[in-house]
Amino acid sequence: MTTLPHDDLGATWRAARTRPAGVHLDSAACSRQSAAVLDTVARHARHEAEIGGYVAEAAADGLLQQGRSVLAGLVGLAAADLAFTESASASVRTLFSRWRPAPGTRVGMLPGEYWQNLAVLTDAGLVPVVLPADDAGRLDLAAAERVLRDDPPALVHLTLVASHRGVVQPGRELAALCRAAGVPLALDVAQALGHVDCDLGADAVYGTSRKWLAGPRGVGFLAMRPSVSARLTPVVGPELFDDGGAGVDHARWYESHDAHVAGRVGLVVAVGEHLAAGPHRVRERLSALGRATRERLDGRGGWTVAEPPDEPTAITTLRPPADGDVRATVARLREHHGIVVTAIGRERAWAELTGPVLRVSPHLDATLEELDVLAGALAP
Amino acid sequence: MTTLPHDDLGATWRAARTRPAGVHLDSAACSRQSAAVLDTVARHARHEAEIGGYVAEAAADGLLQQGRSVLAGLVGLAAADLAFTESASASVRTLFSRWRPAPGTRVGMLPGEYWQNLAVLTDAGLVPVVLPADDAGRLDLAAAERVLRDDPPALVHLTLVASHRGVVQPGRELAALCRAAGVPLALDVAQALGHVDCDLGADAVYGTSRKWLAGPRGVGFLAMRPSVSARLTPVVGPELFDDGGAGVDHARWYESHDAHVAGRVGLVVAVGEHLAAGPHRVRERLSALGRATRERLDGRGGWTVAEPPDEPTAITTLRPPADGDVRATVARLREHHGIVVTAIGRERAWAELTGPVLRVSPHLDATLEELDVLAGALAP
Repeated sequence: MTTLPHDDLGATWRAARTRPAGVHLDSAACSRQSAAVLDTVARHARHEAEIGGYVAEAAADGLLQQGRSVLAGLVGLAAADLAFTESASASVRTLFSRWRPAPGTRVGMLPGEYWQNLAVLTDAGLVPVVLPADDAGRLDLAAAERVLRDDPPALVHLTLVASHRGVVQPGRELAALCRAAGVPLALDVAQALGHVDCDLGADAVYGTSRKWLAGPRGVGFLAMRPSVSARLTPVVGPELFDDGGAGVDHARWYESHDAHVAGRVGLVVAVGEHLAAGPHRVRERLSALGRATRERLDGRGGWTVAEPPDEPTAITTLRPPADGDVRATVARLREHHGIVVTAIGRERAWAELTGPVLRVSPHLDATLEELDVLAGALAP
Repeated sequence: MTTLPHDDLGATWRAARTRPAGVHLDSAACSRQSAAVLDTVARHARHEAEIGGYVAEAAADGLLQQGRSVLAGLVGLAAADLAFTESASASVRTLFSRWRPAPGTRVGMLPGEYWQNLAVLTDAGLVPVVLPADDAGRLDLAAAERVLRDDPPALVHLTLVASHRGVVQPGRELAALCRAAGVPLALDVAQALGHVDCDLGADAVYGTSRKWLAGPRGVGFLAMRPSVSARLTPVVGPELFDDGGAGVDHARWYESHDAHVAGRVGLVVAVGEHLAAGPHRVRERLSALGRATRERLDGRGGWTVAEPPDEPTAITTLRPPADGDVRATVARLREHHGIVVTAIGRERAWAELTGPVLRVSPHLDATLEELDVLAGALAP
């Protein structure tokens, strides 16, 4: 039976937050912000009302730039490479809509690519080249190597941890293959950052605040090497400025300005809390929580776990028994047991899911007792 | 000498807010949120931490839908026509990037169109047809009628109140001309909503929360008739859903989901405060504040007012004296006098501005004494 390492992390995380109203096992949807993050956001908004929105933003400039630096560092890039956005969705739309590849340009991706990313890529005129995966949905590296050698696409897009399955893709190995083939790699780390290692050598990386980093909603980022931004055209670019945009970092042309700045300031604090906890220790505890979740739930009431038991993530997805209804079960768990989990529809990954799944995603403060409560509620 | 009507509005507005740190005359940039709005936003965020982000959003569903209804009503449309977005910028980008007009499609607009809107329109492949304006930048209706009759563009785009000049365009008259010509009208009300009447008969209307409505930053909206959305293609559309997206209002396909939902809830409260104050009374007091500002500042130290004295807005822009430096003056006013105003660069409207201007934009709580302080500080 799994025990959890780093109980101090769980205790600290719990003490830093308001008491949950029930059992929150839903950080892959949206984590619980700490009181310090909530206070920071509220304080910045109050500051806006006292001194003016743009004066307050200018006063937070140093903190925001520190945030760009630290966030970029977590994905192996630099402050100048990072733009704050509203969300991972906004980031991927900006990245591909501003690239404007020639029609028919090919992009390598997994069969289980997140539906909204797939929609953005095809909307941009890109033609998907499916990179083979095993039954768990994990990239087949040998096959990827062959594709990259024999018939390389113009780029590869990888979602490091999917929203519909808690499997970590071999991002570092793929990045090395891409580099060797001269093919840029774009990485979606929305479910990965603050959860698994994201410093893997990708060329463009985007993610969100509200999941494993436990920052505010409405904040995301897009980070990219200068070699990537060199292929993009901003809507409002340097040529529209008197001074030709001198001194503006290359990624900043893709940052939004009419924005939830208070939330960005809050994200910087949330990232600080993540670093203070120690990313390695966070990963170890989250992995153990995933293992403990799978041990307790697999087979329970006929629900079966999709992930390998030792997959180093905190995300577990459950396929229902023959007569099971995922959506109704999620509603029942919330209404009768106060347990918050997510129903994942098949549309999230048409080519990989065979039906809806129930997703369980505890963060650091979850306890083995809470997982037992879920197990009992799942199969009464 | 102008006196201000509706002093009760000023007193209520002031009492509802934290005390400003100085003299805030910058609502065209970003207004001061009320304590009730700040509290609402903070409370929703705390609620997210207690019960989960998506559970909290579902709990706010009725309030958000009420907000869509009221906001849409203010621009002459219905709840089903409105999508929450991040900003007016996000809205205009969505509207035109998802329309994808045939290359060479023509759009009527003023010579002083906001630079970022112009960039979005040309980025979408639209070709501007300039509708003539007078020296103040106001649309020449007779000329517009001729263009719409003789050689109509595919649509007309109008910014009802510009960010670089406090002139109200004849939106209602233009809407009537457009309707008669069968040409759809898109209206940017970012500087107009909560400030002047925006229920004018346009077909698509977009705006922001943070200016005259005094809602949170990071929230905007896009409202459009079904005849407009029928021309658009969402990135993620009904065909990707099992049930074909049944029952989803037409505009909702353009609403963002990974969003600053707490801010949207806050905007609904801010709109409620606007309605409670009485939009007509708000407009009367803001117009009087504009008139009083122009009376006090025109000619002061060689600065000259660009607007007609009685223009019914609270925005005044000042052209500097021959040796005047707008940016340095704005910095001096803030640093030495605690007065917050904005330096508007010429890039905001290349074809209309001949140089930078200083923008003054008081909201309801501004006093004649504060305007006198500004006048004294401008020409010591």
